[in-house]
Amino acid sequence: MSTRRFRADDRALDVLYDRLSVTDLQPLWELTGLLTPEPVVGAVPYRWPGEELRALGEASGELVPVERGGDRRVLACCNPGLDGAPYAVPTLWAAVQYLRAGEVAPAHRHTPAALRFVTQGQGVWTLVDGDPVHMSKGDLVLTPSWTFHEHHNPSSEAMTWMDVLDLPIVAALGAVFFEDGPTDVASTATAAQSTSESWYGGGPGLVPVAGPSAPGTRSPLLAYRWADTDRALAAQLQASGRGVAVIRFADPVRGGDVMPTLRCEMHRVESGRRTDRTRQTGGRVACVLHGTGSVAIGGETFDVGPGDILAIPSWSAWDVRAETELDLFSTSDAPVLEALGLMRRDTVAVPGPVAVP
Amino acid sequence: MSTRRFRADDRALDVLYDRLSVTDLQPLWELTGLLTPEPVVGAVPYRWPGEELRALGEASGELVPVERGGDRRVLACCNPGLDGAPYAVPTLWAAVQYLRAGEVAPAHRHTPAALRFVTQGQGVWTLVDGDPVHMSKGDLVLTPSWTFHEHHNPSSEAMTWMDVLDLPIVAALGAVFFEDGPTDVASTATAAQSTSESWYGGGPGLVPVAGPSAPGTRSPLLAYRWADTDRALAAQLQASGRGVAVIRFADPVRGGDVMPTLRCEMHRVESGRRTDRTRQTGGRVACVLHGTGSVAIGGETFDVGPGDILAIPSWSAWDVRAETELDLFSTSDAPVLEALGLMRRDTVAVPGPVAVP
Amino acid sequence: MSTRRFRADDRALDVLYDRLSVTDLQPLWELTGLLTPEPVVGAVPYRWPGEELRALGEASGELVPVERGGDRRVLACCNPGLDGAPYAVPTLWAAVQYLRAGEVAPAHRHTPAALRFVTQGQGVWTLVDGDPVHMSKGDLVLTPSWTFHEHHNPSSEAMTWMDVLDLPIVAALGAVFFEDGPTDVASTATAAQSTSESWYGGGPGLVPVAGPSAPGTRSPLLAYRWADTDRALAAQLQASGRGVAVIRFADPVRGGDVMPTLRCEMHRVESGRRTDRTRQTGGRVACVLHGTGSVAIGGETFDVGPGDILAIPSWSAWDVRAETELDLFSTSDAPVLEALGLMRRDTVAVPGPVAVP
Amino acid sequence: MSTRRFRADDRALDVLYDRLSVTDLQPLWELTGLLTPEPVVGAVPYRWPGEELRALGEASGELVPVERGGDRRVLACCNPGLDGAPYAVPTLWAAVQYLRAGEVAPAHRHTPAALRFVTQGQGVWTLVDGDPVHMSKGDLVLTPSWTFHEHHNPSSEAMTWMDVLDLPIVAALGAVFFEDGPTDVASTATAAQSTSESWYGGGPGLVPVAGPSAPGTRSPLLAYRWADTDRALAAQLQASGRGVAVIRFADPVRGGDVMPTLRCEMHRVESGRRTDRTRQTGGRVACVLHGTGSVAIGGETFDVGPGDILAIPSWSAWDVRAETELDLFSTSDAPVLEALGLMRRDTVAVPGPVAVP
Repeated sequence: MSTRRFRADDRALDVLYDRLSVTDLQPLWELTGLLTPEPVVGAVPYRWPGEELRALGEASGELVPVERGGDRRVLACCNPGLDGAPYAVPTLWAAVQYLRAGEVAPAHRHTPAALRFVTQGQGVWTLVDGDPVHMSKGDLVLTPSWTFHEHHNPSSEAMTWMDVLDLPIVAALGAVFFEDGPTDVASTATAAQSTSESWYGGGPGLVPVAGPSAPGTRSPLLAYRWADTDRALAAQLQASGRGVAVIRFADPVRGGDVMPTLRCEMHRVESGRRTDRTRQTGGRVACVLHGTGSVAIGGETFDVGPGDILAIPSWSAWDVRAETELDLFSTSDAPVLEALGLMRRDTVAVPGPVAVP
Repeated sequence: MSTRRFRADDRALDVLYDRLSVTDLQPLWELTGLLTPEPVVGAVPYRWPGEELRALGEASGELVPVERGGDRRVLACCNPGLDGAPYAVPTLWAAVQYLRAGEVAPAHRHTPAALRFVTQGQGVWTLVDGDPVHMSKGDLVLTPSWTFHEHHNPSSEAMTWMDVLDLPIVAALGAVFFEDGPTDVASTATAAQSTSESWYGGGPGLVPVAGPSAPGTRSPLLAYRWADTDRALAAQLQASGRGVAVIRFADPVRGGDVMPTLRCEMHRVESGRRTDRTRQTGGRVACVLHGTGSVAIGGETFDVGPGDILAIPSWSAWDVRAETELDLFSTSDAPVLEALGLMRRDTVAVPGPVAVP
Repeated sequence: MSTRRFRADDRALDVLYDRLSVTDLQPLWELTGLLTPEPVVGAVPYRWPGEELRALGEASGELVPVERGGDRRVLACCNPGLDGAPYAVPTLWAAVQYLRAGEVAPAHRHTPAALRFVTQGQGVWTLVDGDPVHMSKGDLVLTPSWTFHEHHNPSSEAMTWMDVLDLPIVAALGAVFFEDGPTDVASTATAAQSTSESWYGGGPGLVPVAGPSAPGTRSPLLAYRWADTDRALAAQLQASGRGVAVIRFADPVRGGDVMPTLRCEMHRVESGRRTDRTRQTGGRVACVLHGTGSVAIGGETFDVGPGDILAIPSWSAWDVRAETELDLFSTSDAPVLEALGLMRRDTVAVPGPVAVP
Repeated sequence: MSTRRFRADDRALDVLYDRLSVTDLQPLWELTGLLTPEPVVGAVPYRWPGEELRALGEASGELVPVERGGDRRVLACCNPGLDGAPYAVPTLWAAVQYLRAGEVAPAHRHTPAALRFVTQGQGVWTLVDGDPVHMSKGDLVLTPSWTFHEHHNPSSEAMTWMDVLDLPIVAALGAVFFEDGPTDVASTATAAQSTSESWYGGGPGLVPVAGPSAPGTRSPLLAYRWADTDRALAAQLQASGRGVAVIRFADPVRGGDVMPTLRCEMHRVESGRRTDRTRQTGGRVACVLHGTGSVAIGGETFDVGPGDILAIPSWSAWDVRAETELDLFSTSDAPVLEALGLMRRDTVAVPGPVAVP
């Protein structure tokens, strides 16, 4: 408040401002930028290149033991617009995790919810409250709020994947709790199929009458397999004839999103097609699984390929153009915006030929 | 009221009773059986034998053209306790439908919701609002309230299946509407996969972001395929180790039941095992898909085999014993009872060795 | 099935029909009236005159002790279209209850839910699970499913009110349970305000943070007082300027209807005005509290006055014309129809000058 | 990252860290404080004294015209733990607003939702989407997300009240939109009762069947009057006999909270009594309406009196002790925490004699 906006040149005002300051009050009329016509966010449209993410994961793997800090070898995507905060967008943590052959990352749990999206390879097991979930390219694996989770890699190859957490939201709400697992040693259990999938992964619309219970706020199904997702996308493409298919990952029992803070989707764009250009409130992180093309976000356009991670800030319009058939995983805080009545969406005109003939 | 319960021998009472009668009133103190300690229902535990149902379907097929009455060749299961009403239990219509090679049953729609459960064969197509849904053994096919539906059999074999409708409920509520389709001729369209399944049948927990809309009260997925159900039952059996698996058919988008009046389940009991003996309010119809064994309902025990239809009245305890591995489809009015706060359930002790070791 | 609809004159058909009969099957093609273009209900539009109801209550009071059958002195409205069934419409029991000065009706409970609407007088206490609720003209008092209830009249005047129960619905679903209270003697407790109202009746939109719990299916507020209802109707009339006001009685904590099977409303029509002519699926019972006028139901028009009870069958259009300002209590099974996706409503044109200028 | 946590002394690590920095990545193993055993929040327990708030409002009124910045004369409570951010707790804006006799504050709207709680005086009208709502001591007035609101003071006295907004939440989600009203001039309309209250304020559990619609996310009732609140608290105190009463302000139509981000309550503590000591995730702002006593928050205890505003940070245990009967308005982000599955609550032991004998 060194430079006043309100320029009344009298001594009484100085006195008032001093009293306000002493009382821990600020006059609204000196504050700016609080209520803006449209959302103003620090985060910028951004791309982290997949090739570099893999290379840096590997380099970290050689130099840094997994047990360092948090018992995870994780590289956090830091949006350059966020003044060094380790977040991809203001509401989402995104990172790559790298686990070498034979390594383990022991159990802990925290109220921030996490998801793992596998961009390449296979062979790591994530145990969620003790249930061994295999991870393979294209799979989405959930470690919901306050579930113990640990990773181990009994395979002979290193593996990398993307983590996304709602950490900034939970932190902003003053609701972060953390707890280490009962032992320092990760379980190295494996199983042909996770218990979660045996109960809840039977097929579309098939749910157990008396399965193991999960909190009403999240999906009891912990893994969504690429083979299913791929088949669903192909069927939808054929049914719609629109050149674009979008699948939402859902709680098979109660419908709705997989976790109360994170919406997960897979987008497939046929070679030569383009999605509608849309924007919505809230932040989004996307990750290319297959294919090449470009993603336009706000005023920027990024060429993209496998493994690239993208930051799409609130209210930035974006679209995807596929050079070759392109599969894009997307996760956003949309359930939060919707629950609070704050979701706005619109479609923005794009110059040039449209995707749908 | 010819025989009074209340025996006051005076003339004034006669006068009162006459006045009541003239005014269309009845004295509560002369009424009995209105409020009973436990549910009293006319329906009795019952079994319609599959072999006879098939034989009678076939015989009807030879003698009666499909276009007779309702344009359907349908034999309704009439519970002997219901004084000739054509209902399996007081709240559910159950029937077998029979369609010969080359036959068609043209489109109509009605507010009562229907489901089709296929007990044998394949080759018939049910079109639901124009969407061709193939029917094959073990499949569950929905024709929800007020959807146009028509059947055609382009195959060279006759086919039979079980229909269940919530007709008695809808009739009791004064809510039956009916409308013939736009033409007298059934469409003979077929498709490799129904549009409904292309959009909504992708896999467990996979739903389209912008699929064709359906009323919020029912599943947009119209067919549940035996291959999926079978796999889900097998996985659950293995996960539970209890010798019994029960799958509920669910709305993949909103969770909950497939239709607001009908809960659908598939029960699998391993050879030599027995289910818990339970009872609940509301009526249930079950149908054996595979296997042999016995079903005890109330005080009766029925030997059962493929194609048998069973009536399980409200509050009758029942259990299933499998001689060979037994798959039993079940449908009930449970969503109605639950929505109205009237569901009661309990487990009843059974003499003899229990299912779970 | 003595007279066949399907007239194929061969012996084989006789044989088939015999076999069907033996197997407890009926051919759909011989059944009529199952699926009708519009709802067909036995119940007819009907009026029970308030004056006669009071007179007959009084006459019963003199001749019949309260402890006869069901421990209640109740006269049930029997719709003449329902073949002697003691129901006002197919889904609702409606009756007048009469309690003399000093009389008591001891506690019992049942799964059918009941409401009491007081058409005249005051001075009776209904205890709901032991909580004493005073009853006075214009009040709506709930005795939800499975709550113990008892009545006592410590005043020096007899009192009469209307009972409505969802008994036919609960019976049709095979869900009637009944239990006598712990003693044969009714409690004669009274209180300045019921506990229910002390916790939940504070004002519009005011609910306790830690009140005594009630099942999630029904309102914890057990009495809706005429003074409040009257004030709300007057305010709405003024705000709308439409000459008609309609209030719904709601669960103050969860919104929605007071009980899962019964919607309760109060309609006020200004002198000289008329309501829209509407119809909807499901049955309705109405009761005049104040005023005179006429109610047209289907093809009939009834002159009405205080205490009259009206039966409005499913899909019968109805409207109210007020000679003097008219207050009409209405209760219907609308929550059931809505929960099951079976509600249809429309507005029907009326000849003559409309209510809203 | 100037000071590394991971002290491997080799050059390769420097190279890696440089590459990470260039790629906008941060290694998790160098980050601290992200996942803490319990919530760590900057905000501290705090009290803004009512007397000083009033005095500073008055002083501002003399020196600063209302039309300065945001067209509101508002003093924002700045929690000293938040590095100068103008928020009372990390998720809530709290402020005092001061409007002199004859002043007006013209219409605008914004997605952050606001509430006004009146700590003294009367005579100002807030128009919400044009509906004039009078404000008087003890009233709670809502201006939900994206409703136009304006204030005018036709009385002869200045008036002050507390504003609370969910601004920090909406800003963190990138969802702030703002729009000026159609004109620069505030309407000076008044009315004996707001339209909102005429439709929705009739009484406990009384809602219009066809009232003006409001978005499904918030209450259509815009004002909760002190007379009602006071009566509800008194009734609850008597019913509970516990010396403490807590009322939640609710949406009268759908139940639930008045707005999707803000829970509002009124607490009354009898003279000499103390509340339980509890803590929960999420922030809370409280404001004393009547009475004196003390409020313990975390490790601090504040003597309190009328008009005091208190900041209760996430997971800080708090309790209230009343010297004289104390009425405390409380608002929190609890609906957000609950919607996201992040609410934790517990009760903490307090030394000394307890409230409930």
